[in-house]
Amino acid sequence: MFVYADNAATTKISEKSLNAMLPMFTEEYGNPSSLHTVGQKAKEYLEDARARVAKCINASPNGIYFTSGGSEADNQALRSAAYMGRCKGKNHIISSKFEHHAILHTLNALEKEGFEVTLLEVYSDGVVKPKDVENAITDKTCLVTIMTANNEIGTIQPIKEIGAICRSKGVLFHTDAVQAVGHIPVDVEEMNIDMLSMSGHKFHGPKGVGALYARKGILLTNIIEGGAQERRKRAGTENLPAICGMAAALEEAIENMEQTTEYVTNLRNKMVEGLKDIPKSRINGTMENHLPGTLNMCFEGIEGEGILLWLDQKGIAASSGSACTSGSLDPSHVLLAIGVPVEIAHGSLRLSISEYNTEEEINHIITTVPQVVSYLRKMSPVWEKMMKEEE
Amino acid sequence: MFVYADNAATTKISEKSLNAMLPMFTEEYGNPSSLHTVGQKAKEYLEDARARVAKCINASPNGIYFTSGGSEADNQALRSAAYMGRCKGKNHIISSKFEHHAILHTLNALEKEGFEVTLLEVYSDGVVKPKDVENAITDKTCLVTIMTANNEIGTIQPIKEIGAICRSKGVLFHTDAVQAVGHIPVDVEEMNIDMLSMSGHKFHGPKGVGALYARKGILLTNIIEGGAQERRKRAGTENLPAICGMAAALEEAIENMEQTTEYVTNLRNKMVEGLKDIPKSRINGTMENHLPGTLNMCFEGIEGEGILLWLDQKGIAASSGSACTSGSLDPSHVLLAIGVPVEIAHGSLRLSISEYNTEEEINHIITTVPQVVSYLRKMSPVWEKMMKEEE
Repeated sequence: MFVYADNAATTKISEKSLNAMLPMFTEEYGNPSSLHTVGQKAKEYLEDARARVAKCINASPNGIYFTSGGSEADNQALRSAAYMGRCKGKNHIISSKFEHHAILHTLNALEKEGFEVTLLEVYSDGVVKPKDVENAITDKTCLVTIMTANNEIGTIQPIKEIGAICRSKGVLFHTDAVQAVGHIPVDVEEMNIDMLSMSGHKFHGPKGVGALYARKGILLTNIIEGGAQERRKRAGTENLPAICGMAAALEEAIENMEQTTEYVTNLRNKMVEGLKDIPKSRINGTMENHLPGTLNMCFEGIEGEGILLWLDQKGIAASSGSACTSGSLDPSHVLLAIGVPVEIAHGSLRLSISEYNTEEEINHIITTVPQVVSYLRKMSPVWEKMMKEEE
Repeated sequence: MFVYADNAATTKISEKSLNAMLPMFTEEYGNPSSLHTVGQKAKEYLEDARARVAKCINASPNGIYFTSGGSEADNQALRSAAYMGRCKGKNHIISSKFEHHAILHTLNALEKEGFEVTLLEVYSDGVVKPKDVENAITDKTCLVTIMTANNEIGTIQPIKEIGAICRSKGVLFHTDAVQAVGHIPVDVEEMNIDMLSMSGHKFHGPKGVGALYARKGILLTNIIEGGAQERRKRAGTENLPAICGMAAALEEAIENMEQTTEYVTNLRNKMVEGLKDIPKSRINGTMENHLPGTLNMCFEGIEGEGILLWLDQKGIAASSGSACTSGSLDPSHVLLAIGVPVEIAHGSLRLSISEYNTEEEINHIITTVPQVVSYLRKMSPVWEKMMKEEE
């Protein structure tokens, strides 16, 4: 049996999404910037996709800028808000310690350009506290950026409340919603969001495409200079097949969200029930306000890489944390941020499921994970030492 | 009859390219950064594509960085070389007046950061002179960037000679080869190229993907910060379907280059023969060292937009210049750079054909263009005035 339980890393494209892409490859292959009929038909598909993506987050189509993915959208959002702030003499940015590296590394780069960055603590529940945001805002603050849902532990953040605080203080609010869009309701109006990043391949759409939402009045800084595409804010021939694929996937996800959430949550709860009693294990972050499909656990005395390689042998594709840093031997910065001790953070496992998973697959996970944990612990000198100390 | 004669704007994807992409959507959908088998298989496809793209330009696979397209590659190349230069106290960049806007606008941005930019003249033949490059180099010069082939008029530049001059002077040499790769032989070793940009959708590959080649020792500056993809130099989940599609399209283009060049050149020459005798017309740039498929002409007394909209009515998709600036009413900066007077530059037409075009289609072009030019001139007050002045 093969179980793909790494949907937070990337998802399989849906049939509807692929079917929306195919004619853009073979029939409607024009460049949307071309004035002839082929180009103008491509342009119509582009603007139709823009309107549909906008509607899915209750935004104005004019606020949607298509990018090559979530990382590019994050980079552009942060630089835009920072440089707008600098024009007004503001140089302070607030974020959190457990953001995605597309946020944290961009903030590092902005620090080198003279910006001051406050990274808020995250508590053991994996939730940023709106009060902490409020307290951190100064008259120099030009941007708050807090993710909608964490990519490793799946906790959903109080975006609406944080957005309201920012709005009342006149500070721009960006949210990296890459893990949230298509999975939970996201409404930029209701949630007081000024800027938002999304990525197509996280909701059964294609890789290589994302979008940045920016509220009217926000002056975007170009990350990619050149042609006049995307209202002069993102140069390069538009990736029309992927854009159409993303729009279709997002609509499908939102149309089915209620039943998907119920189905996936049930499977996830079954995983929790089946795994939570493994000795010396913990579930990372609260499960109360949480993405339906994500479960992040730590198992003391063993290494996450070991777990996932053995799970892979048993047909289960999972992750120890973010795929983007899987080459690294450091423990997850997310787990450290929520207070998991370093030695325990090393033994992390992220299982992220979707509506494509079946109950049989979950049963396979529930049976296999305890076996693998037990097997690895038998070989682990760390575990052996722990057990001796307990005796 | 429908004739797509705008292949310099974008091309129809080849069957081989699409077939290389499809399994990446449906079967090999893993994230190349994931450690499990699905991810590692994706990683293998990624590195296989990298090696194949590298081979096509005689580069080391380690020198290939996949991007979202040619514009991103151009931006990253120029910023990287500029910032490397700044570290050594060098702040002078040499380019030409008829580069793509992805180059010119990035240079504008770098000027605002304190870099000095020399834009070389281009002569009526549409060719940058190596001697001019040599004369412009100072001890402050950190980068020369000259396109391999111009996107509007199709003239091929003396890249090997310019590269040799740069090498002998210890100056980095970048070339925007977006219009050249897949159409003419490009060999980064033989042509003394340090950095090169390419774009998949210009050679019957997919949109939304390109590559930056950077010679060993060049320290790239990230345009997109975040995850550790592309040896930490380009964050964001790799667009594997498009990357595989680009590799397949490029291999196919190079495999068939000899016969494609002969076939397309014959068609192009037929166009030249059929159109060159239209009164008060000119062919822009020398046809001597030229891309096989591109022909750029000006017709006095009429507007390029008018020509192409009427051609569109007759089933011919063409362009007045670059698609990236087609919304603009300004005449082409390329034509102005090669000395075409403003009033004549307004009447430009770019016909860019490929191996997918047929002789019948070229006959349709040859029949239709003179009719359209003649028809528009009958309605043109400018033309009427010109004729009166001649009497």
